[in-house]
Amino acid sequence: MRATLIYGAGDIRVENVPDPVLREPTDALVRVLRSCVCGSDLWPYGSKPAAEHGDRIGHEFLGVVEDTGAEVTGLRRGDVVVAPFVWADNTCDFCREGLQTSCRHGGFWGAQDVDGGQGEAVRVPQAEGTLVKLPVGEDSALLPSLLTLSDVFPTGHHCALTAGVGPRTTVTVIGDGAVGLSAVLAARRLGAERIILMGRHKDRTDLGRDFGATDVVEERGEEGVEKVRELTGGDGTHTVLECVGLRPAVETAFGVVRDGGTISRVGAPQYPEVPMDLQVFFRNITLTGGVAPARAYIEELLPDVLDGTVEPGRVFDRTVGMDDVPAGYRAMADRQALKVLIQP
Amino acid sequence: MRATLIYGAGDIRVENVPDPVLREPTDALVRVLRSCVCGSDLWPYGSKPAAEHGDRIGHEFLGVVEDTGAEVTGLRRGDVVVAPFVWADNTCDFCREGLQTSCRHGGFWGAQDVDGGQGEAVRVPQAEGTLVKLPVGEDSALLPSLLTLSDVFPTGHHCALTAGVGPRTTVTVIGDGAVGLSAVLAARRLGAERIILMGRHKDRTDLGRDFGATDVVEERGEEGVEKVRELTGGDGTHTVLECVGLRPAVETAFGVVRDGGTISRVGAPQYPEVPMDLQVFFRNITLTGGVAPARAYIEELLPDVLDGTVEPGRVFDRTVGMDDVPAGYRAMADRQALKVLIQP
Repeated sequence: MRATLIYGAGDIRVENVPDPVLREPTDALVRVLRSCVCGSDLWPYGSKPAAEHGDRIGHEFLGVVEDTGAEVTGLRRGDVVVAPFVWADNTCDFCREGLQTSCRHGGFWGAQDVDGGQGEAVRVPQAEGTLVKLPVGEDSALLPSLLTLSDVFPTGHHCALTAGVGPRTTVTVIGDGAVGLSAVLAARRLGAERIILMGRHKDRTDLGRDFGATDVVEERGEEGVEKVRELTGGDGTHTVLECVGLRPAVETAFGVVRDGGTISRVGAPQYPEVPMDLQVFFRNITLTGGVAPARAYIEELLPDVLDGTVEPGRVFDRTVGMDDVPAGYRAMADRQALKVLIQP
Repeated sequence: MRATLIYGAGDIRVENVPDPVLREPTDALVRVLRSCVCGSDLWPYGSKPAAEHGDRIGHEFLGVVEDTGAEVTGLRRGDVVVAPFVWADNTCDFCREGLQTSCRHGGFWGAQDVDGGQGEAVRVPQAEGTLVKLPVGEDSALLPSLLTLSDVFPTGHHCALTAGVGPRTTVTVIGDGAVGLSAVLAARRLGAERIILMGRHKDRTDLGRDFGATDVVEERGEEGVEKVRELTGGDGTHTVLECVGLRPAVETAFGVVRDGGTISRVGAPQYPEVPMDLQVFFRNITLTGGVAPARAYIEELLPDVLDGTVEPGRVFDRTVGMDDVPAGYRAMADRQALKVLIQP
């Protein structure tokens, strides 16, 4: 089968790799219907040292079950399923607490001999715990939105949820990438009435407004902080959803959060330290968030996707086949595309 | 009257200062029955640059109302009252949310022409919002425990509460100072059954055991982290109460917290940054806490103090008069005393 590999910064290749086979009785084989490129894939795409051997990449996919191991019940050939971006048994104590990203028997796609998601098929470990069956056919028009249940929409939801977003909270979302826009959508879904989106790509912030943003702040840094404070009577917002992962975004978050408020970060941190000094201490600011346990949220978010209440798939603005995956990476890295859908 | 001033590191003096008088109609005058030295007073005591003029110091006191301004209702001469360590109107939006430390019309004792608490009397701004009447006489044996409502016990409570301590959570308390021990007491009061106290002063950790600690870990740094992990099946505890304020304590906190867990810090941070890198992100660790809005908790904690359910005043192991306040500071700085009570 064909799959995507990364050899180093800027070096994405699509190659023939061995077809996946069942290895463990808890495995399933899934033929991929849709995959996509994640903002977090752009970190290695931007900085990975060149290597002789490529690494499999991609962690978001939706597909059709082709075969299952002897111990897999509840899934059968032909089922359309979505996989969260971390596989997990969904039965250990962490999973039962809704923290499948810390599953005692789970792991990441594309690591340790597990397939990446950006290919034609995937061997899914802990298939029964990992996969969620979708009540749609292979040709459903909802596939793009359903694919977002793999990562980007639950990540936005995790951000809003851990920040404590609700009807009475004001929200600032930092970042107009696919995660930021998903966070807007999730915050609106949780009842937030005031959502300030910080971003400066008009096509993206326009989608953000469609998703529920009530205000858009284009300015960055100190200027951006001033603008959000102006919009909130000088106080800042109760919650801040940090969807970038860079140090300046974190600094902005501390600038726009209201005393007693919460910053949730779901942008994979490209920084080692966070400024939490005496001033932050006196203001009782909470910093939460982290990698989203997407698996914990899929069942909850699914109905709203199925009935069209939310359309998170609108973050996809380009679709490529396997041949064009490298071009898809380039388009996202160059900000020509917001998020690239892959149709193998 | 006599009051305590700090002139620089190690230079505490007791001097005659003008008697306080009512200035605003919202003021009250309080004759101090008991005050005390706080661990946070030891920061300037350890490092304040020498100055020609001293600054008033002390932010914990309990006393008797001597006079009230025209707008103060609900308090009258002779009432025994306790003051939280930040004064506040208790009516603004932040106060109504229980964040009196961010009160729009509040401030700190000993700053901006407001008396410090370590003296014979205090002019109390926003008296009606700030002071809480206590149903005891001037000679009550409960005065030491009631005085802890000013700061150290609510600070421990804030730490445990914001960390989410409850019956099903395991707890590590870092620090065996008066705040750490108060955090143990507060965690036990909130129902925690497993409380690991990290500290190495036996007389203090013994009091910690009386307060509810189930385990004591003397080791520090990596060794201490290993020990806590051993005690918790390798996982760490759901919550960590950081009651020191130094960088190594924060690092230990990240080492002993369970995936998905919460660190709450109430040790005033003597560090500018916190290590919250990709590993912390993948583990979904929350960092919360801050300066405790003691005022928000006094009414809730008071009944348990009055009926003897808790005896937070046991943290006081030395009592001094005004003359000996400098010696009291020395004793605390030298760790000869855990917490010094001042009886003017």
